[in-house]
Amino acid sequence: MFVGYTRADWEAVGAKCARICRHVGFGPGDSLLNLLGGGLWVGGPCFDLLADVSGAALVNTGPTGPRQLFEWVPEMGITGLTATPSYLRLLVETAEAEGAALGSWPLRLGFLGGEGASPELRRQVCAAMPEQFVWQETYGSTEVGGAILGYSPPLEPFSGHLNAATDEFVIELLHPDRDEPVQPGDVGEVTVTTFREASPLVRYRTRDLAAAVDAPRDASGLPRMTAVVGRIDDALKVRGALVYPSSIEEVLVARLAAGAEWRIVLRRDRAALDVLTVSVEAADDRSAERLASDLHQRLLVRPVVEVVPVGTFERFPGKARRVLDERPED
Amino acid sequence: MFVGYTRADWEAVGAKCARICRHVGFGPGDSLLNLLGGGLWVGGPCFDLLADVSGAALVNTGPTGPRQLFEWVPEMGITGLTATPSYLRLLVETAEAEGAALGSWPLRLGFLGGEGASPELRRQVCAAMPEQFVWQETYGSTEVGGAILGYSPPLEPFSGHLNAATDEFVIELLHPDRDEPVQPGDVGEVTVTTFREASPLVRYRTRDLAAAVDAPRDASGLPRMTAVVGRIDDALKVRGALVYPSSIEEVLVARLAAGAEWRIVLRRDRAALDVLTVSVEAADDRSAERLASDLHQRLLVRPVVEVVPVGTFERFPGKARRVLDERPED
Repeated sequence: MFVGYTRADWEAVGAKCARICRHVGFGPGDSLLNLLGGGLWVGGPCFDLLADVSGAALVNTGPTGPRQLFEWVPEMGITGLTATPSYLRLLVETAEAEGAALGSWPLRLGFLGGEGASPELRRQVCAAMPEQFVWQETYGSTEVGGAILGYSPPLEPFSGHLNAATDEFVIELLHPDRDEPVQPGDVGEVTVTTFREASPLVRYRTRDLAAAVDAPRDASGLPRMTAVVGRIDDALKVRGALVYPSSIEEVLVARLAAGAEWRIVLRRDRAALDVLTVSVEAADDRSAERLASDLHQRLLVRPVVEVVPVGTFERFPGKARRVLDERPED
Repeated sequence: MFVGYTRADWEAVGAKCARICRHVGFGPGDSLLNLLGGGLWVGGPCFDLLADVSGAALVNTGPTGPRQLFEWVPEMGITGLTATPSYLRLLVETAEAEGAALGSWPLRLGFLGGEGASPELRRQVCAAMPEQFVWQETYGSTEVGGAILGYSPPLEPFSGHLNAATDEFVIELLHPDRDEPVQPGDVGEVTVTTFREASPLVRYRTRDLAAAVDAPRDASGLPRMTAVVGRIDDALKVRGALVYPSSIEEVLVARLAAGAEWRIVLRRDRAALDVLTVSVEAADDRSAERLASDLHQRLLVRPVVEVVPVGTFERFPGKARRVLDERPED
């Protein structure tokens, strides 16, 4: 599906970006390093536009290795950046490995999105960043026009909540298999209706899963939803149970060393039963039993936990891809 | 060197793009496929801006394999595209190999630049494109703000000339080693002076080589210069003589089959003499002797010509890199 925007549509996206910037406090005097590239999605152009309408300076390098940032961020006085959570994690890990100190950076805001990130991961990354740094989650998609569907309440970066832009979009949380809303508080598919001159959306199903949150509103006046807890495509059916990779992430990031990677492998054993193996990077295998039990409790499926040496797995400068489903297709 | 633009600077770039579009006839009703990506140069953003100020629709996919264009260009009614000459050559070659017909495409304008292209290469590429297609050379750089320093006279696409924007920039052709202009008609280094709020340029040396052309002006009223004939960094010193890879290209494209690739290799023999080897793709080696003699006449250096099977060398979706200098550093 191709998505188009007229000039008026794009200006409306800009107005939404400007509102977010006013609320999170980003504008004249700030410099945004936009690490999101162009291509068949709106990520890069949307944040170029955000800098433009906010009055901030823009350094739009597109995808760039973390080492370059050690030089650029202090030299150019970068105060905000855009990236995926995986990229920020890689940045922190690279800085630690090379003894680069990020604490004195002028960076104070990260516009982060494009994939989920557990509160635990956010806390670990923020601990390595300058004290004033705020994890500013943003949520949206190319179809809705950019990262303008929701953003984390700026004073509660670890809440795992989003302010949902329900005044600008009709946002519904529907059952994945029928056009009916889930019960308040239950996880449903984020579904968007919006007027536009080009490519209007009527009950556009994002494949993203989230739940409404009954919590006091902040200065934005917007109602809350959870950050995306998973994608419909992500859910793994393991021995009949639905397992979300994001739940595995949450347990692992809390237990493993900072920056440790993992992989989730699904196989079928000789008795035709699904086997869920979680391979984790760790210095020794003392934690394996504990991890297996924590994961079991969380997933309701008992995984095999395998320990591999730290540094075994590839790191992700973009979105993480950690699942290998090697089961034969039914 | 980092280059910055204020909002006013960037609007001035837009005004220059708009003037070029008015002259070459590109605007409302047109659709521009921008295949140039973002990153540490202005190519991608400059043509996004060009579409915006001209009133054309914009499809900014960034770098994309040629096969995708077989679907996109007809489906989306693309009338203009931006690319390097090497990319267009690869597109034509891929279309021929796969039997894709480009003749019925709506494409009528290619904004081409970023590297040189001989008149012969332009003719060959245009022969495979739709009849209405025009090779619209553009010239500029990140330092000057984009592809706004010159553009080929739209009615003379094979002239090898550029309309030089001398009303907006001070353009001098200087001796590479001193601040003095070359004789009219001689090749000199394109040197630019321009006012801007951020990053103004005073005798900025582009490293590009070109010559003034004494020819009647077209409707733009601008004086003419040649397209870039080479880069100072490109010139190869071979047994004391300066050899420009662009001169080799011109001879080879005229003699080889369409789409054939080549490499230029420099080695030092046991007598400490430079050996210039040109490896060319061809069906047989009957042409080798003739090529060597044509190249000798053009370069004043006699090369070794080696014939290799068609398809031996890698193709270039971006700028071509054909020179391997394997001589020991002195």
